[in-house]
Amino acid sequence: MPELRKDPIAGRWVIISIERGKRPTDFGMRVSAKKGGFCAFCSGNEHTTPPEILAIRPDKSAPNTPGWTLRVVSNKFPALQIEGQLNRVGEGIFDKMNGVGAHEVIIESPDHNLTLSTMPLKSIEDALQAFYYRISELKKDRRFKYVLVFKNEGDAAGASLEHTHTQLIALPIVPKLVQEEINNARQYYNYKERCIFCDIIRQEIADKIRVISENENYISLAPFAPRSPFETWILPKTHESRFAPDGQFPLLAQILQQTLRQIDSVVNLPPYNMMIHISPFRDEVNEYYHWHIEIKPKLTKIAGFEWGSGFYINPTPPEEAARFMREAKI
Amino acid sequence: MPELRKDPIAGRWVIISIERGKRPTDFGMRVSAKKGGFCAFCSGNEHTTPPEILAIRPDKSAPNTPGWTLRVVSNKFPALQIEGQLNRVGEGIFDKMNGVGAHEVIIESPDHNLTLSTMPLKSIEDALQAFYYRISELKKDRRFKYVLVFKNEGDAAGASLEHTHTQLIALPIVPKLVQEEINNARQYYNYKERCIFCDIIRQEIADKIRVISENENYISLAPFAPRSPFETWILPKTHESRFAPDGQFPLLAQILQQTLRQIDSVVNLPPYNMMIHISPFRDEVNEYYHWHIEIKPKLTKIAGFEWGSGFYINPTPPEEAARFMREAKI
Repeated sequence: MPELRKDPIAGRWVIISIERGKRPTDFGMRVSAKKGGFCAFCSGNEHTTPPEILAIRPDKSAPNTPGWTLRVVSNKFPALQIEGQLNRVGEGIFDKMNGVGAHEVIIESPDHNLTLSTMPLKSIEDALQAFYYRISELKKDRRFKYVLVFKNEGDAAGASLEHTHTQLIALPIVPKLVQEEINNARQYYNYKERCIFCDIIRQEIADKIRVISENENYISLAPFAPRSPFETWILPKTHESRFAPDGQFPLLAQILQQTLRQIDSVVNLPPYNMMIHISPFRDEVNEYYHWHIEIKPKLTKIAGFEWGSGFYINPTPPEEAARFMREAKI
Repeated sequence: MPELRKDPIAGRWVIISIERGKRPTDFGMRVSAKKGGFCAFCSGNEHTTPPEILAIRPDKSAPNTPGWTLRVVSNKFPALQIEGQLNRVGEGIFDKMNGVGAHEVIIESPDHNLTLSTMPLKSIEDALQAFYYRISELKKDRRFKYVLVFKNEGDAAGASLEHTHTQLIALPIVPKLVQEEINNARQYYNYKERCIFCDIIRQEIADKIRVISENENYISLAPFAPRSPFETWILPKTHESRFAPDGQFPLLAQILQQTLRQIDSVVNLPPYNMMIHISPFRDEVNEYYHWHIEIKPKLTKIAGFEWGSGFYINPTPPEEAARFMREAKI
């Protein structure tokens, strides 16, 4: 019998269609081999991107020249524009505002062929630190209420360039999905006086069936109601509402790379999306919301049922996914 | 400057990135040519589907034999299962229930090569009537709170069979996206004492820029904040909360086929999803919610930004999409 499960944080239901349970090898998609050719994110082509906002240059080389190990640049084709005022206005019954925001690209490595799974751990540490630094800087701009950090790996997951990179978008509004998580977490907190994420982590550690791995500070787990097969969350084990892992970057980089290697090993290098959910700037230090990373391999299609209902159909129970990932040889 | 627009019914924001405005011909995807081969939905293969629940047989032929012009059967690989009780239970902090529901397939034509754009109008009328009839029947089952009717056309839109068909899923809960629309519509009604959809229709008819076409009873329009290029809604022009277009099937079939032909002509036969949003059974006749059809061509990819935020980035302003569709030669 299929099962309907509710994610208590997002407030959405998913259908775990156990009968159709797919083995990891049943999923056809994988990131296609890199084609190469000209790449704006490769070393030597720094002049073809917008000027760098931040870079790590161990050899003290000049900005916008080779020698970097990590670069942050503005997106050349930004979804939102950095200049201007918001001008919230109505248009009859409708509401709109100027598309003001920042859209940046974090290039974690000058090497075209590396990914988060294969690059040196130090590159991931640096990238996490760059996310933290850029979020802190963008927070100073009072027009922005939120920064979403996300990664699209592979064409099917929406990556338009094959050289791996992460993006961030600073937004003048708190995104709907984050606001929903906050509303649900706050409702739980009002009732229980405990963080719902902390309670979930406690239950998962006791149950052991959906935990994938742990280190001193972080845990990775298959959420109870995942939207798609092998969806994985990484969370700090103790309460942290704000993304500020000072001193913890090595441990976070370690569990992130390990998780991606487990997914790559079990599902054969799938395209994936990664999103970091943090507390909005306005109430950044709070007791009800817990920052976390969501990794969502792109293994199923979103069709009319999902578009019309907001339900997701997932053919792989998270208990099975977690077991496969725990047993993965990486 | 890109624009942020809010859909007042769904409560979600979209980014209309006008600078990157794509012409209709810029979209690469199209429904690939049909490959043919064995098809369970073709005339002559009735024994390979579950037995028919409903069929139109002008020649009075026997059930589950050729001679039909429309067939409704259970889905052979249902997402939910018809037998059993809901058994809502907790699992520690989490909530789950049995995956009880109905999952049916409406085959609008025995001809493998027709689509809603190309089949005789009478077939579409019959299909709409079949939706209405099956919703009315499933409503009698007190376990169900909602029926979602949807169509996936083309592989990229999630269709697993190329012979066109519509599906319906009866659900023991009101889907999240429908509940959000209802909450927002009710909030508006509480404030204004008018249906928000009726107000939108009045404004669109006055503005004329996003209206695509109209007939005596129905209107098709590009919504103010569409999730993707050429998203189109079809609504009854006067208030109707319940999907019961008795006597209006020909007019509804006409505008539906015309809209799909306009999309096919402008974007070159794109894959698409179609969803019908109706009032939940519990409060089916009401003054605040207005049933409607949403048609969403599959022309953009859902990536990390969308998964993490619930925002959508749409490169085609609805005003342009509506103009292209109005001018389409069909």
